[in-house]
Amino acid sequence: MDVSKIVDQVVKKNEGEGTEIYFVACGGSLVDMYVADYFLKSEAKKIGTGWYTANEFVHVLPKRLNEKSVVILCSHGGDTPETVAAAKAAKESGAQTIGLTHNTKAGLLKYSDYSLVYEWGDETNVKNNPMALILDLTVSILNAVEGYSAYNDFRTGMERINSIIEKARKLVAVRTKKFAEKYGQEKLFYVLGSGPSFGHVYGFSICSLMEMQWINASAVHTGEYFHGPFEVTDKETPYILLVNEGRTRALDERAKLFLDEYAEKVEIVDAKELGLGTIEDSVIEFFNPILFYSVLCEYREALSVVHEHPLETRRYMGKVNY
Amino acid sequence: MDVSKIVDQVVKKNEGEGTEIYFVACGGSLVDMYVADYFLKSEAKKIGTGWYTANEFVHVLPKRLNEKSVVILCSHGGDTPETVAAAKAAKESGAQTIGLTHNTKAGLLKYSDYSLVYEWGDETNVKNNPMALILDLTVSILNAVEGYSAYNDFRTGMERINSIIEKARKLVAVRTKKFAEKYGQEKLFYVLGSGPSFGHVYGFSICSLMEMQWINASAVHTGEYFHGPFEVTDKETPYILLVNEGRTRALDERAKLFLDEYAEKVEIVDAKELGLGTIEDSVIEFFNPILFYSVLCEYREALSVVHEHPLETRRYMGKVNY
Repeated sequence: MDVSKIVDQVVKKNEGEGTEIYFVACGGSLVDMYVADYFLKSEAKKIGTGWYTANEFVHVLPKRLNEKSVVILCSHGGDTPETVAAAKAAKESGAQTIGLTHNTKAGLLKYSDYSLVYEWGDETNVKNNPMALILDLTVSILNAVEGYSAYNDFRTGMERINSIIEKARKLVAVRTKKFAEKYGQEKLFYVLGSGPSFGHVYGFSICSLMEMQWINASAVHTGEYFHGPFEVTDKETPYILLVNEGRTRALDERAKLFLDEYAEKVEIVDAKELGLGTIEDSVIEFFNPILFYSVLCEYREALSVVHEHPLETRRYMGKVNY
Repeated sequence: MDVSKIVDQVVKKNEGEGTEIYFVACGGSLVDMYVADYFLKSEAKKIGTGWYTANEFVHVLPKRLNEKSVVILCSHGGDTPETVAAAKAAKESGAQTIGLTHNTKAGLLKYSDYSLVYEWGDETNVKNNPMALILDLTVSILNAVEGYSAYNDFRTGMERINSIIEKARKLVAVRTKKFAEKYGQEKLFYVLGSGPSFGHVYGFSICSLMEMQWINASAVHTGEYFHGPFEVTDKETPYILLVNEGRTRALDERAKLFLDEYAEKVEIVDAKELGLGTIEDSVIEFFNPILFYSVLCEYREALSVVHEHPLETRRYMGKVNY
């Protein structure tokens, strides 16, 4: 999908001035927005950023919201009440809203100045998944507002990511099954990582393990691991460590060294080994989570087979009142 | 301690212009900064904000850092290598640095343009703890730069918080012991909360439970709970829920309603019941985490007695290389 029309309109309305971009959603959709927020925190000079779970955004609306603010909202089903309410609140504050959903009849679209109704299910083309679309929107807005020196590298990366993922998924086909056999009876996993991928550290914990498999999980940033969390490490506790390519790799490798010494149940998912390295150094880190998401889907699928617990099974979500 | 001199100097250098304030630390010190970041996200019109674990800040330095940026760093012992490195990197980028520590000879002070060497251990005066000092700095900078309509209410709140906490600690003396007796054998806790207190939701998990008691823990935002994490809820899994006073109370109360129905092992720590209500509505929410920290110290102390595991015991921190 081409985001350039939306980018042109947003930037035109802002007259090329600095602004803020807010990323607002719940659960898995919020996870998908993390890397775009991380990108702006690192690269932007004139564009501020904020990453919000929708209900907190509704209750604690930023006072600086104004007609130059951009609020990006995402709801896969399109009718998540908190996200729809957040879009409404954002519009009422005068901000420009961009809504992403898979549902052409989504309630979210009522409050979206611009919309991207994405397709879903084609695992061979991740460029049209919400994570990649939101990142593309964000990078393109930054480029239009203040120029982004690595913009061409980013575009080339987007062209390469599908084939990288295709190879990576084949590469992990055997090891994900081994992982599931080895750790299928565990009751708790720590998921570790950093930087652009911390969203998926959190996302694998809350969506793939807790929601889809009813397995306890805790997300830990590898930069924080040595300031408390590492004290629970022992040879019985299982860890899944996402090792990024790019600037925060040093943090992940430090955690790996420690786990090599003091833990035994450790699964390493390493973007370098999985072939991300053909993307330019200037932008490689922003593609880690796109790769990790696809690869981690293989892990959760393998777990679901061993658990005999389909990924779609819920006991509360959509079944009881809350 | 009086932060006004530092505020005057910082604002003078910035000529009253908008800027960003970055909060940079590790573990427990990072936890203490969360509410100040939350405050700016909500209240500021001209001041941007960012909250960073120090090693990620060092490796992914924001490009917008400049001589008008303010970087607040905190290290209790004063020599946390990542935090000292972050202060050095911030200074090299031209930013103004404010260092907080308990150690007059801290390495952090070498790279701090301004410093606050705080006292520690006087539980009857939390106003001089780093959390309150950093919040006070932040609120006062905002007031000086763009005016903050509830500034007087905030100052009154600061005068009241010590006596509120004194009463609350007495109030929980019996229940913390009961809690520890009831849940002393549990291997995992979920800690839930939102808004200004999410830092302490995370902090109680990684510092009090994981680091100090070697108990597994996972922090969950009550706004996110219904978008994945609630699927692990059952009558065997223990939850500690922090219920805020203020705007995000609705999120916490929603989680409480669900836990009342589907869980059995639930400990509620409610700021309203603990007497926070004498602080003005305009600022009450920002005092939740100051109250919760003191009260949660009573909970962890009670756990340590039942576990016969002193809060100071470590197996890795400061004992092995990492």
